[in-house]
Amino acid sequence: MRAVGLITEYNPLHNGHRYHIQTAKQLTGADCTVVVMSGNWLQRGEPAILDKWTRAKLALQNGADLVIELPVYFATQPAHLFARGGVTLLSALGVRHLVFGAEHPQLDFARLARTLAEQRADFSAYNATFATQFNAALQAATGVTLTHANDMLSFCYYVANQQLPRPMTLLPIQRQRADHADTTIDDRHFASGTAIREAAFARQWTTIQPVVPADTFDQLQRQRLQRWADFWPFLQYQLLTVGVAQSGQYDQMAEGLEYRMREKAQTATDFDDFIHQVKSKRYTYTRLQRVATAALLQLTQAEVQAAQAQPYIRVLGFNATGQTYLHQVKKQLEWPLYTKINKDLRQHAMNLDYRAGRVYELVNGQSQDLYRRPWRF
Amino acid sequence: MRAVGLITEYNPLHNGHRYHIQTAKQLTGADCTVVVMSGNWLQRGEPAILDKWTRAKLALQNGADLVIELPVYFATQPAHLFARGGVTLLSALGVRHLVFGAEHPQLDFARLARTLAEQRADFSAYNATFATQFNAALQAATGVTLTHANDMLSFCYYVANQQLPRPMTLLPIQRQRADHADTTIDDRHFASGTAIREAAFARQWTTIQPVVPADTFDQLQRQRLQRWADFWPFLQYQLLTVGVAQSGQYDQMAEGLEYRMREKAQTATDFDDFIHQVKSKRYTYTRLQRVATAALLQLTQAEVQAAQAQPYIRVLGFNATGQTYLHQVKKQLEWPLYTKINKDLRQHAMNLDYRAGRVYELVNGQSQDLYRRPWRF
Repeated sequence: MRAVGLITEYNPLHNGHRYHIQTAKQLTGADCTVVVMSGNWLQRGEPAILDKWTRAKLALQNGADLVIELPVYFATQPAHLFARGGVTLLSALGVRHLVFGAEHPQLDFARLARTLAEQRADFSAYNATFATQFNAALQAATGVTLTHANDMLSFCYYVANQQLPRPMTLLPIQRQRADHADTTIDDRHFASGTAIREAAFARQWTTIQPVVPADTFDQLQRQRLQRWADFWPFLQYQLLTVGVAQSGQYDQMAEGLEYRMREKAQTATDFDDFIHQVKSKRYTYTRLQRVATAALLQLTQAEVQAAQAQPYIRVLGFNATGQTYLHQVKKQLEWPLYTKINKDLRQHAMNLDYRAGRVYELVNGQSQDLYRRPWRF
Repeated sequence: MRAVGLITEYNPLHNGHRYHIQTAKQLTGADCTVVVMSGNWLQRGEPAILDKWTRAKLALQNGADLVIELPVYFATQPAHLFARGGVTLLSALGVRHLVFGAEHPQLDFARLARTLAEQRADFSAYNATFATQFNAALQAATGVTLTHANDMLSFCYYVANQQLPRPMTLLPIQRQRADHADTTIDDRHFASGTAIREAAFARQWTTIQPVVPADTFDQLQRQRLQRWADFWPFLQYQLLTVGVAQSGQYDQMAEGLEYRMREKAQTATDFDDFIHQVKSKRYTYTRLQRVATAALLQLTQAEVQAAQAQPYIRVLGFNATGQTYLHQVKKQLEWPLYTKINKDLRQHAMNLDYRAGRVYELVNGQSQDLYRRPWRF
């Protein structure tokens, strides 16, 4: 039994994502589609509009056979660490092909990655302004600059894949829309996640219906929808009360940023105003949102790094095919496989995901870990 | 010009408090009434129903000449530290008489305090279950037990006063009602603060009108009223996200209590349910509420102790008499006198009061320190 892997966020799952799943199956002829999906907190440093259980269910309803959670300590990281988390998880699960969308799939990502690797560029040093510094290094090494988010992410998949003892086969495909952050819906069947989320919060249902599967449409209308504004009171409270000695330890908090965040938290009227006030040339909005997420979840850099070094496989759901595949690879797994949480996991190995879920739950109101079992389709 | 001092909370200011002010003036013939009043967080570990500025104004409208804030690092402490804060503040202001209510003013508090002092009882060791352990020591030394809250507080005033280089004259008076926590209003003009607060939250205005001054009645109807339930979402969020290594540092957090609080925060439905779930024989409700306050404000024991060692005089308001008195004592003050906050004070000397005010403000919506000047009557 052969599996193809996808690294996803599904915020929310739309027609472009369904096309991605279908294409991955067709391209590879795989028997099983394994989806690694961010949990409740995402790569751009924001809460998911629908919780991880709803999104995992939508994935199973739209072609996935097995859904695995990308833990918060990988999901809320810069592109190279997000990519490393997804790639190593899929590889640990015995997946042989990875299919992903890029704005320019024709680029020779493998060569770019090898060339940059030869320069011995140290990605871990690029935490501060990753995109800019990374592109400077890439430009110096290859003469190419990657300015599109998914080209960049694709490149990161290649870099992470090269470091595996037994690399997967990577298959970039053309994204349906060039601009991931496009906020308008002008195509008949496809729209960006950003545009769909904005329409959902505005309750513009007729705009959304043509561009998402029926199940997504149904869930968007039925479930509580989350966004940063919901969590702002907690973030503001936290930044006002925590000492800078402590907040300076938060993951991705750059030197001195803790003072700036404390100061701006005092005058900001809402989350957008806060991020605008904190914004400077040194940091991108995405970076600041990731730091805000770390502050909200009180994730320290030490905790995140320790967790990244001891990952696990958390199952969110599967169908009969996914179950057979899991059974097939179970014995060779190097990492622990978790299907439910217990007191020990909650306090230790899965502590960060559990905490991230508890905070999400304060707004969402649905238990995210306790008493939850994987979906069985 | 001679001054009489009062140590108060005014939660809210009622007829019993007005009687207290009038009696203090009559008993001592003082020219100036100096009121030390808890800020927004109180000795029983709860938010004040009205903010400190409203309560200071009410004090000035009802006989006080000068109102000083009892800083949060004294106000939210066990009786002996609360008493020490109030007594040393008044003494620092040159006050010669202290008048306070007791359930049994006829008790020879001075002798009890001297006797216990001779036993070299160390109050600072009684943090855990202060009332019980303290009474055991008092019983052993004197044969007397103090079971009423204001008898106990009165005794603490004597203990603190004895430690002053130049002790004040202490004058206990009969409290109008024996039971401070009585929740019924059955007297024509007097009722406990607890009963008045409950009636105010139930909007039973006709019940309240006879037992509070007109200005208090007016403010209770006009202002936003605060209680623990308002701050519970922040406390729950905090206990769910903070690490036990950090929460174990919070002021008055006893060994192991941080684990119990974290566990109960996960299942509690509201603040009352939380405190009930955490309650055990080892801790009183009041003690647990004080710990909850320290957790909410992220006050560590180290911070509180450092602040107690470097106190200041924060003026909330005065009339002409109070101003003259302040002018008279200004030159001999050993402690700094603050009438407004600036960036340096906010980040250093007054950091804890500022933080306590910012959290209160998240619910109350009125600036508690920035842009505020003392009332001038």
